[in-house]
Amino acid sequence: AANKKLLILPGDGIGPEVMGEVRRIIGWFERERGLGFDIEEDLVGGCAIDAYGVPLADKTLDLAMGADAVLLGAVGGPKWEPLPFEIRPERGLLKLRKEMQLYANLRPAIVFDELADASTLKHEVVAGLDILIIRELTGDLYFGTPRGVETLPDGTRRGVNTMVYTSPEVRRVARIAFDLARKRGSKVCSVDKANVVETTEMWREEVIKLHGEGYEDIQLSHMYVDNAAMQLVRNPKQFDVIVTGNIFGDILSDEAAMLTGSLGMLPSASLGDPDESGRRRALYEPVHGSAPDITGQGVANPLATVLSFAMMLRYSFDMDAEAEMVEQAVRNVLKSGLRTGDIMQPGMAQVSTTVMGEAIIREL
Amino acid sequence: AANKKLLILPGDGIGPEVMGEVRRIIGWFERERGLGFDIEEDLVGGCAIDAYGVPLADKTLDLAMGADAVLLGAVGGPKWEPLPFEIRPERGLLKLRKEMQLYANLRPAIVFDELADASTLKHEVVAGLDILIIRELTGDLYFGTPRGVETLPDGTRRGVNTMVYTSPEVRRVARIAFDLARKRGSKVCSVDKANVVETTEMWREEVIKLHGEGYEDIQLSHMYVDNAAMQLVRNPKQFDVIVTGNIFGDILSDEAAMLTGSLGMLPSASLGDPDESGRRRALYEPVHGSAPDITGQGVANPLATVLSFAMMLRYSFDMDAEAEMVEQAVRNVLKSGLRTGDIMQPGMAQVSTTVMGEAIIREL
Ligand SMILES: CC(C)[C@H](C(=O)O)[C@@H](O)C(=O)O
Ligand SMILES: CC(C)[C@H](C(=O)O)[C@@H](O)C(=O)O
Repeated sequence: AANKKLLILPGDGIGPEVMGEVRRIIGWFERERGLGFDIEEDLVGGCAIDAYGVPLADKTLDLAMGADAVLLGAVGGPKWEPLPFEIRPERGLLKLRKEMQLYANLRPAIVFDELADASTLKHEVVAGLDILIIRELTGDLYFGTPRGVETLPDGTRRGVNTMVYTSPEVRRVARIAFDLARKRGSKVCSVDKANVVETTEMWREEVIKLHGEGYEDIQLSHMYVDNAAMQLVRNPKQFDVIVTGNIFGDILSDEAAMLTGSLGMLPSASLGDPDESGRRRALYEPVHGSAPDITGQGVANPLATVLSFAMMLRYSFDMDAEAEMVEQAVRNVLKSGLRTGDIMQPGMAQVSTTVMGEAIIREL
Repeated sequence: AANKKLLILPGDGIGPEVMGEVRRIIGWFERERGLGFDIEEDLVGGCAIDAYGVPLADKTLDLAMGADAVLLGAVGGPKWEPLPFEIRPERGLLKLRKEMQLYANLRPAIVFDELADASTLKHEVVAGLDILIIRELTGDLYFGTPRGVETLPDGTRRGVNTMVYTSPEVRRVARIAFDLARKRGSKVCSVDKANVVETTEMWREEVIKLHGEGYEDIQLSHMYVDNAAMQLVRNPKQFDVIVTGNIFGDILSDEAAMLTGSLGMLPSASLGDPDESGRRRALYEPVHGSAPDITGQGVANPLATVLSFAMMLRYSFDMDAEAEMVEQAVRNVLKSGLRTGDIMQPGMAQVSTTVMGEAIIREL
């Protein structure tokens, strides 16, 4: 088989540190398993602003469009916060999502047995938690127009943003939710605000329609977003797959991530549609940010990025067995008592980013 | 002093049951404390649809506009769910908010010592929690136009809703947040999505501007809504007053309510501006819904509505001492071990709605 083309964008802050460990794991797969990767590396976010003057250079976008998969570290940091809206680091990320049409953001919220006590929720409420939140990623308030702030003649300022979805946009992300639910608990909860916001009433209707077109085996439910925010706290284990729009998904997926108590462990995938050759545009990144407070100290937790790489093996390359291997290695390392600072517990051994990466390779 | 004009709208489901206990408490204040109330009662929500064909009749709105304060139970129920968008029970509530210009929704999230174990969060995370969320209530996606769903020539449906805020709308609700923070912990956290949504970037700028106009004693911070959803789970006690827009506030205030573990205990107030005579339009209601599953059984918890009445005494009638009395009575009744079903704990005495109401009066 031809080599897989991989674009690695370590980004800012701890991004390069955690990505270093993933590169070593990739090296292991190349040596020991004969996997062939053609790897390019480039800049995104603050470091791209420094080098190229923009958070995402055209040539970087071209590399991303030509890659079989993109692996990203993290973007942003205090250095770039004073910059104006249009050239801030996060614009690079938003542009990547939009240009690559990565409309389905997969955000697992998983509690590892060994780390269940790190949650602020009671053990019995979160132990064994395994939710998959699917957030639409290319529509909604994020990209809708008209948008912006105008100043009226009397000096009043008026801000406008537009929530917009079309029925095909709803259907394609709902289809991913149904397809993935089938490989898990076969339950999908679609979250909207259909009692107030007409766009999301349309969302609900389209999800129901698609469900009737061959997904009757999936148990479909609907929930208002305010209630979903409550139910995630009350009893998160009632959920299997949640599918929702971009802005509600931004809020709920972060809430769900925090339920687990270990943000440093959570990966994500952002998927587009397969092209003519069957290749699906895809970007993988940890949920955590660039963590400027611990940057350069060698203490960051690489496991969320490692698990993002496992998602890449599964969703971009259909290498379920290899993905499982990586995930099992992470579980084994946790079981062996190794912990980075962010997930440190009494009686465990606190280790550096590099030692954690080496431990994963040993387990492999 | 002239009698206070009170409009009582018990609404649907358990609304009439819990409101019955508040009426007895009002009776106690009239008899024992010489408070004078002129009380009118009318229908809102599903029962108004049944009786008048609309969820809020014009004559009911007139009564509300003429009242010194409105006390509402709950609206909605399965009977009215199949109805079209425009005449559903919740439209009555939204119309009341908009017509009365109740732009500031005060949602305390308080953990009562006796009920701290009811939370799904660990005791130390929530014990003593006392947050006040102030949600803007008359703008945003709830009322912005254009809105609606159109069908394009090719059959594609396209839904649009509009988030809109003006600077005076931001300032008036932020002012309430600063004023109320001054009577509490003097901390305000303004929640937005200023890194993506320009309307909320304007929100942030206006809050900062107002802060500089005489509120420098208040410690002001800003947080993105996704992070706020996380921080509420991670460490809710970091917050004092949170101020945010209508849709973010809908989500975050319900999340915060569920942190307490006792939805049946939480009151709310929705305030407008004082008119020429100094009278402030205001509506008070419990956070919980109409609870159709337990309607008519006499087991509903009246305490959220009782505490909403206490908020009325405080915010509409400046009767801080009387409000305190009611709140202390609620704490004492909890201490004495009485519980309705929703907050029942081992070793406590489970009582009916009426017995709970009587216990409050005995404590008064
Ligand atoms: C950085 C920001 C633009 C981004 C978003 O809101 O989508 C982030 O919060 C995320 O969830 O990936
Ligand atoms: C019933 C619904 C319209 C309402 C809202 O979204 O405002 C409710 O959720 C609330 O928070 O009072």
